Amino acid sequence: MNDRPKTPTLDRVNLPSDMKALTDRELRQLADELRAETISAVSVTGGHLGAGLGVVELTVALHAVFDTPRDKIIWDVGHQCYPHKILTGRRDRIRTLRMGGGLAGFTKRAESPYDPFGAGHSSTSISAGLGFAVARDLGGDPGDAIAVIGDGSMSAGMAYEALNNAGHLGKRLIVILNDNEMSIAPPVGAMSSYLTRLYTGGPFQELKATAKGAVDLLPEPFKEGARRAKEMLKGMAVGGTLFEELGFSYIGPVDGHDLDQLLPLLRTVKSRATGPVLIHAVTKKGKGYAPAENAADKGHATGKFDVITGQQAKAKSNAPSYTAVFAKALIDEAGRDHKIVGITAAMPDGTGLKQFAERFPRRSFDVGIAEQHAVTFSAGLAAGGMKPFCAIYSTFLQRGYDQIVHDVAVQGLPVRFAIDRAGLVGQDGPTHAGAYDTAFLANLPGMVVMAAADEAELMHMVATAAAYDDGPISFRFPRGEGTGVDLPERGQILPIGKGRIVSKGKGVAILSFGTRLSEIFKAAEVLAARGITPTIADARFAKPLDRDLILTLAASHDALITIEEGAIGGFGSHVAQLLGDEGVFDQGLKFRSMVLPDRFVDHDAPFAMYDSSALNAEHIETKVLEVMGVEKLADRRA
Amino acid sequence: MNDRPKTPTLDRVNLPSDMKALTDRELRQLADELRAETISAVSVTGGHLGAGLGVVELTVALHAVFDTPRDKIIWDVGHQCYPHKILTGRRDRIRTLRMGGGLAGFTKRAESPYDPFGAGHSSTSISAGLGFAVARDLGGDPGDAIAVIGDGSMSAGMAYEALNNAGHLGKRLIVILNDNEMSIAPPVGAMSSYLTRLYTGGPFQELKATAKGAVDLLPEPFKEGARRAKEMLKGMAVGGTLFEELGFSYIGPVDGHDLDQLLPLLRTVKSRATGPVLIHAVTKKGKGYAPAENAADKGHATGKFDVITGQQAKAKSNAPSYTAVFAKALIDEAGRDHKIVGITAAMPDGTGLKQFAERFPRRSFDVGIAEQHAVTFSAGLAAGGMKPFCAIYSTFLQRGYDQIVHDVAVQGLPVRFAIDRAGLVGQDGPTHAGAYDTAFLANLPGMVVMAAADEAELMHMVATAAAYDDGPISFRFPRGEGTGVDLPERGQILPIGKGRIVSKGKGVAILSFGTRLSEIFKAAEVLAARGITPTIADARFAKPLDRDLILTLAASHDALITIEEGAIGGFGSHVAQLLGDEGVFDQGLKFRSMVLPDRFVDHDAPFAMYDSSALNAEHIETKVLEVMGVEKLADRRA
Repeated sequence: MNDRPKTPTLDRVNLPSDMKALTDRELRQLADELRAETISAVSVTGGHLGAGLGVVELTVALHAVFDTPRDKIIWDVGHQCYPHKILTGRRDRIRTLRMGGGLAGFTKRAESPYDPFGAGHSSTSISAGLGFAVARDLGGDPGDAIAVIGDGSMSAGMAYEALNNAGHLGKRLIVILNDNEMSIAPPVGAMSSYLTRLYTGGPFQELKATAKGAVDLLPEPFKEGARRAKEMLKGMAVGGTLFEELGFSYIGPVDGHDLDQLLPLLRTVKSRATGPVLIHAVTKKGKGYAPAENAADKGHATGKFDVITGQQAKAKSNAPSYTAVFAKALIDEAGRDHKIVGITAAMPDGTGLKQFAERFPRRSFDVGIAEQHAVTFSAGLAAGGMKPFCAIYSTFLQRGYDQIVHDVAVQGLPVRFAIDRAGLVGQDGPTHAGAYDTAFLANLPGMVVMAAADEAELMHMVATAAAYDDGPISFRFPRGEGTGVDLPERGQILPIGKGRIVSKGKGVAILSFGTRLSEIFKAAEVLAARGITPTIADARFAKPLDRDLILTLAASHDALITIEEGAIGGFGSHVAQLLGDEGVFDQGLKFRSMVLPDRFVDHDAPFAMYDSSALNAEHIETKVLEVMGVEKLADRRA
Repeated sequence: MNDRPKTPTLDRVNLPSDMKALTDRELRQLADELRAETISAVSVTGGHLGAGLGVVELTVALHAVFDTPRDKIIWDVGHQCYPHKILTGRRDRIRTLRMGGGLAGFTKRAESPYDPFGAGHSSTSISAGLGFAVARDLGGDPGDAIAVIGDGSMSAGMAYEALNNAGHLGKRLIVILNDNEMSIAPPVGAMSSYLTRLYTGGPFQELKATAKGAVDLLPEPFKEGARRAKEMLKGMAVGGTLFEELGFSYIGPVDGHDLDQLLPLLRTVKSRATGPVLIHAVTKKGKGYAPAENAADKGHATGKFDVITGQQAKAKSNAPSYTAVFAKALIDEAGRDHKIVGITAAMPDGTGLKQFAERFPRRSFDVGIAEQHAVTFSAGLAAGGMKPFCAIYSTFLQRGYDQIVHDVAVQGLPVRFAIDRAGLVGQDGPTHAGAYDTAFLANLPGMVVMAAADEAELMHMVATAAAYDDGPISFRFPRGEGTGVDLPERGQILPIGKGRIVSKGKGVAILSFGTRLSEIFKAAEVLAARGITPTIADARFAKPLDRDLILTLAASHDALITIEEGAIGGFGSHVAQLLGDEGVFDQGLKFRSMVLPDRFVDHDAPFAMYDSSALNAEHIETKVLEVMGVEKLADRRA
């Protein structure tokens, strides 16, 4: 068991306004206690640890200097917001982080006025901050806009779009580049190298001295015509010209863990900035907690752990994760086919592409957080004769949608989309839900859309995608562990557009697309006890649909129920369209399509999320009984 | 009538290989003739003129120096490809540009091996080029990848993502920045200012002399360790450090109309480049044709015209365009509500935001080609208390999809999406079709989704969106002229989620979402002659659905037909879901959903495109007769 740390100074701070009375010395103490409290809280809840530890001093400095919530701090991604939540009236709930009904793992507008803009995906903060800044100058909400963005997020195009626009508009906007050289994976891309060059050569010492001793010199760049000071500042640091070319005043690099630098700098910026300013703060992910600092991912995301040892209490399972099965199957296929290449957008670990990269380093590409580029780069690879597997989470694939339509589908290029984290994802909540991919892919002409019912099916789909060269193809699979089914030596190539009947029954047919199949089995067991034996089928394909299977099921049953881990507009909608076009509804068919509900599902355990979404075994049972006109047994309702 | 120009040199060139025998002097002649031929062709067909005229010399130089199609020229956007098409075996069809069955207005893989990658949307060429370059180095298709990208396209994040990745990978890749200071609208953003700074101060002369007299000096940056020459080159030009910081060798600026500069430069790059190179060529949009050069949009897109006078032969219409009605309505609303702001992504003319900007310059924002930022910037504005109207074409809104989901819908922020170019768009073809927006918006919780049936309805929807502050709301409307209905003084605020019955009939109900309503009227006239009078309703909302209306129509008719100008997964799918959930299909309902076909519809006149899509009056008539089990009259089939 982990003891709560002693936090006398933090105990005096419920809201940022309580910090105004603290001396700089007390603020330093506050930061230390805040770090201890963050570690203590995450040891109980699990969650994102490293990012938060890296911004403890920044969090304290920002809330000490600025007047939140009037001034708006916009945390990019938001997974570094735990210290911010502790300081903004949510300390009493901090040990409910990411639990059902508890605090969200990201910033969330509905949760607190201190969260002016929610995040979860990266690279949005400068755009949002500029919106606040412009709104303010047009008579909207007053106050400063401060966007905190990590170096990893800087590889995304939208961060650049926002810088480009902000530099052009010239509004007062404060961007803090939190440079920890580490997003989730080690950063890639030329921008990352550039940022590193900016602070190698160690100008920290001199800057620190300046910040302490001659604060007045620092802000000169903001005074009109103060060329001399600007030159001096540029001389002190290595450069920053790239940001200056884009219209920002560049300040830095500064040590993001040194409040003696941060506090005077932010005070000066607050009092004197007139246009867009970029402060380059260098921090260390996992700072101040050795097990995180020493971890390969710098304690990015963790389960519950022992504070002293850093040892995580992780539930062991016999079934491999879908991600692991995908990685293994892809490596296996790539061993036989040298045209196969793997593309990830800053998620080598999460997508399993890391193992692929270890085996095939020349054929593996991590493009950074840059989904738009990832997709069109894959399209170019396909046009150049390769077989690209573009592995992107469902939720992040939204960022490459136009490229999927315009560069892949319109041209019919054989890009393989491996879509991890399909469906509800648990603790990361609604920002990370993989709800829409089936809908937004299956309506594209020529796109093959598959979903794996279990991890063996996933192996078949990897093999099928590797063999299919006639156009784009996709397969989705969920986060987490598989069902534990036996895995084949090697995946089979599936016939395109053909589903399978898993279990023959009568009366009601349940047609599954994805991993709800195991919930159907559970429901079928309960139903069997009442003498009800629905036919169970696995569609495998949302596109092309298995017309024969669907029409046969419709003709030979009174009711047809589709189920999927996705929103309306996807598999069930395609089945309904077919049934309508074929006149099946004309004479009557009890058709029901079970899809994700029309609301964003709050973070919770995945089972609980599906429960609240009415997509678990119990709900399937209810649906079957409903279409049969049979009452559900009272004891199960209770 | 326009005479064909005399083109003796061009007549000798059917394919780029024919250019290999030409002297530099003859290539200059070829360029002049190519320009004349381009002007002549577009005078007959209409289309994009200015962009093509700006790259005549670049086109000649690239095909003269490189070995296409083995080497791959990837034209960004592709609307500048007419000279390229003339030189690559398509001159005999160049006067069919953008006509049904004729050449596409953009590059198109299916059309020619000289079009290695199709485009239509901007900023994709560097990603695609990098894909080709990497594929080549992995044993895929051989040859150089040359991406030509305009300065306007450089505001888009994906161009930056690609530069960032290309600079990191270090593969041989040639990027030609075609800097004409003019995409469609004047460029905006800090990058644009930066590019202008690079060539103001006139280093052309010196560079020209160098290119002519001392070609050997130029390529030195590509030789390892040739620091001295690099410094010299940097001294010659103003800078380019931004690109160098991203890992590119920067060469320029050069005069993109001077073959004496271009040819030796490209030859040198071809023979010596080892990594990524960016050539900054300054060109003039509309170059060499006074009416284009003098036009505000530099002859961006034109109808048929008289070559001598430049006068366009434009069909006059009495009905205003939907875009004009939108602009007027928005200006009207903004006159009463100072919170209304307008956001466009480089399409002030196309979206009508230009008129808004003239009236409300402080409340108008052109963010450049940067749809991701446009959406999240709008979200920030909404969070800051403003009422943003984010006006983006349906097809380009795909580029901001993740931002719509994550920054707008998840947070329930009241951003108003004005979606122009909904449905099929005519000559721009499949890359610009507005097919998917209803599907990808209506499945988002809390999003209100409207479509205007005519231009008066559009006014109501602008008023409704202005008044609605509870969450995100969207309205779609097509390209082109309205129906000519009387326009009200001012739009009415519509009740959210309520449709209207336009005409009461019996037997069959047709429920329309969008501007197919006028086709339904036409079909109804023909049907009336046979005594068939369907009920006609305008849904107005795909979300929230008008449950009462739909269930009442279903209950009181034998058949219900939905129709929309969009792909499957949209309005019709939502209606089907409702009917299924409510058990309406249980007892039988002839339900048909008319949607865009499951293929990309080639460019043609919009009526012809809808005809091939089976969404015109005739097809509605057929569908009604089919569900009634009535034969269509033979004379109409003939």
